[in-house]
Amino acid sequence: MNKKVGILGGGQLGRMLLQAAANYTVETYVLENDESCPAAHLCHHFTKGDIKDFDTVYNFGKNLDAITIEIENVNIEALEKLETEGITVIPKPCVIRTIKNKIFQKQFYQEHAIPTAAFAVTNNKNEVQQFASFFPAVHKLAEGGYDGKGVQILENENEIEKAFNTPAVLEKCIKIQKEIAIIIAINEKGETAIYPAAEMIFDSVLNLLDYQLSPAKLQEKVLWKAEAIALSVVKNLKSPGIFAVELFIDNYNEVLVNETAPRVHNSGHHTIEANYCSQYDMLWRILLQFPLGNTKPILPSAIVNIIGAENYVGAVQYEGLNDVLKMENAFVHLYGKKETKVGRKMGHVTIISSDYTDLTHKANIIKHTLKAKS
Amino acid sequence: MNKKVGILGGGQLGRMLLQAAANYTVETYVLENDESCPAAHLCHHFTKGDIKDFDTVYNFGKNLDAITIEIENVNIEALEKLETEGITVIPKPCVIRTIKNKIFQKQFYQEHAIPTAAFAVTNNKNEVQQFASFFPAVHKLAEGGYDGKGVQILENENEIEKAFNTPAVLEKCIKIQKEIAIIIAINEKGETAIYPAAEMIFDSVLNLLDYQLSPAKLQEKVLWKAEAIALSVVKNLKSPGIFAVELFIDNYNEVLVNETAPRVHNSGHHTIEANYCSQYDMLWRILLQFPLGNTKPILPSAIVNIIGAENYVGAVQYEGLNDVLKMENAFVHLYGKKETKVGRKMGHVTIISSDYTDLTHKANIIKHTLKAKS
Repeated sequence: MNKKVGILGGGQLGRMLLQAAANYTVETYVLENDESCPAAHLCHHFTKGDIKDFDTVYNFGKNLDAITIEIENVNIEALEKLETEGITVIPKPCVIRTIKNKIFQKQFYQEHAIPTAAFAVTNNKNEVQQFASFFPAVHKLAEGGYDGKGVQILENENEIEKAFNTPAVLEKCIKIQKEIAIIIAINEKGETAIYPAAEMIFDSVLNLLDYQLSPAKLQEKVLWKAEAIALSVVKNLKSPGIFAVELFIDNYNEVLVNETAPRVHNSGHHTIEANYCSQYDMLWRILLQFPLGNTKPILPSAIVNIIGAENYVGAVQYEGLNDVLKMENAFVHLYGKKETKVGRKMGHVTIISSDYTDLTHKANIIKHTLKAKS
Repeated sequence: MNKKVGILGGGQLGRMLLQAAANYTVETYVLENDESCPAAHLCHHFTKGDIKDFDTVYNFGKNLDAITIEIENVNIEALEKLETEGITVIPKPCVIRTIKNKIFQKQFYQEHAIPTAAFAVTNNKNEVQQFASFFPAVHKLAEGGYDGKGVQILENENEIEKAFNTPAVLEKCIKIQKEIAIIIAINEKGETAIYPAAEMIFDSVLNLLDYQLSPAKLQEKVLWKAEAIALSVVKNLKSPGIFAVELFIDNYNEVLVNETAPRVHNSGHHTIEANYCSQYDMLWRILLQFPLGNTKPILPSAIVNIIGAENYVGAVQYEGLNDVLKMENAFVHLYGKKETKVGRKMGHVTIISSDYTDLTHKANIIKHTLKAKS
């Protein structure tokens, strides 16, 4: 009998997960409110429903062998009940609970002596006032932030008006030299496989990834430190799954954890073409209790995200698509979203090359060529 | 508006085609009699129906923008009608007609001075008698042969009893030094892209591919000749599409066309991981009128087919799967067929490596490790 595995969420991560699932014999289920979502047509059984609703998630999961997520914002109580009833839930619900709330997440790092930026918990604007010594600081909503939303830079005390008036984390700004992400796979036996670090450059306007290089160019000692810290995060979470640990490297080569995602991640898209075992394939191996795969790169790679261009909302049109499709070493992934809006993730392009100059050069060309407009 | 593209047939080729489709925004349709076929759950719209029935194919296709095939045994008349009504049919129905019938196919080679083994057309056993000078010969059913079925070796006149009593092609046996396949993409503008030749070794018992290496190891002059002949086949067919040209190289380094498939092909599975643009991606580029992709290999590769083991029929169990999943440079593809039977194509494994010894070594290990049993 084929195993029955469900995914909460039907976005692009679900879509790519299901592309990978078709290399196995698993029977796939997706729960998502939008029946024209990117993943809806690629599973055996699609259920329209709210991933945040207890009954919906419980009923979706109760006859499955295993269940996973492609987004943290799900009903954790239902997953906990499913877990007690013997359904394999990956990652464990308690881990989603820790990670989903930025206050709990920061406290988790603190408890396990995992280096992270100094922070304070604030429940309202007034409380922010008490932490004047933290400025310039980043204020992050405890729950519900996503892709640059729910994050506010507070340069100094004059900007406290911009602070969130609900539970949030106030984090001291770090002089960031580099931002990297390390994806780690861990199975039920506790065996781990670490992907090479990926290095990111952010767009300061939209706070969305501009482009990413992998493997990251790091001093060996810094890489080792980053890997050790990322591994410590994952081991302390005590759950099988795929984890993307985002880390800052400051001007003193200190490594600090920014945040962790307990699922396949945007920073791992390149592994589809550039690594022997993609992060998506790897999650299936964990869900289906197969051996972990090989995380080594076949070639170095870059990712350019295709995000909804400014000033365009509506039925998407891809400008410059043919130019990118002509590039000899570029791989285009469109997520099949019918509507574009400013900053929406519409697709990505992976470039693979042994030559980092080629990667950077092509990433920049693609960024300036391929646009999601309406 | 997303283009609507239909596929006749829902087997593994359709499955891999749909995995690749999810990198684009196309709306996909599949027609197939078996609703649990490998491709059924990966399209937007599945229609249960007979691809050999005129009305079924016509009704399936009439509201599509484009239609393609993953098997030749389809209703050509319906495709012709769709073509006259302005639906893009790739490959052209007249090409399917030529290729589907081995008599027409051989005559096509003859008409266009494309080298192929000497042959005679026979309508019954008695007619075979007249071609004694051809023995040892291969007798091939004009229509309906597949995967070694519909092919009969006739060593000498004493074996005429084994000959087909229906229209067939009697072909002189060639002393085969090598068998290769060359996949060529051609778009509506007539632009072509040639994949590196793949080299095959057949299992003499089941007449199914044992393993395949790509790029083939060939003398430059032989490769050039093979590419020129394959290109001549494709250009003379005068249709856009993906074409797999199977060629024999005899002991004198002469190159002869064996047969051509007007679709994605078993000999191109490795292009998913081993080439910049897979044959599946390439067909979408042709169907969606995007630029042709890059056929270059990222690394050399081998394919091992996973076929139903002898003496096993029923619900499939994969023996040795974990051992193969542990291999650092192997990519497992299972087609999701629930039942195995002797010789049935159940999956394949691609190995990529810069080292041909590693490819051959691993191919042999996989062949002897991974079994589809029941």
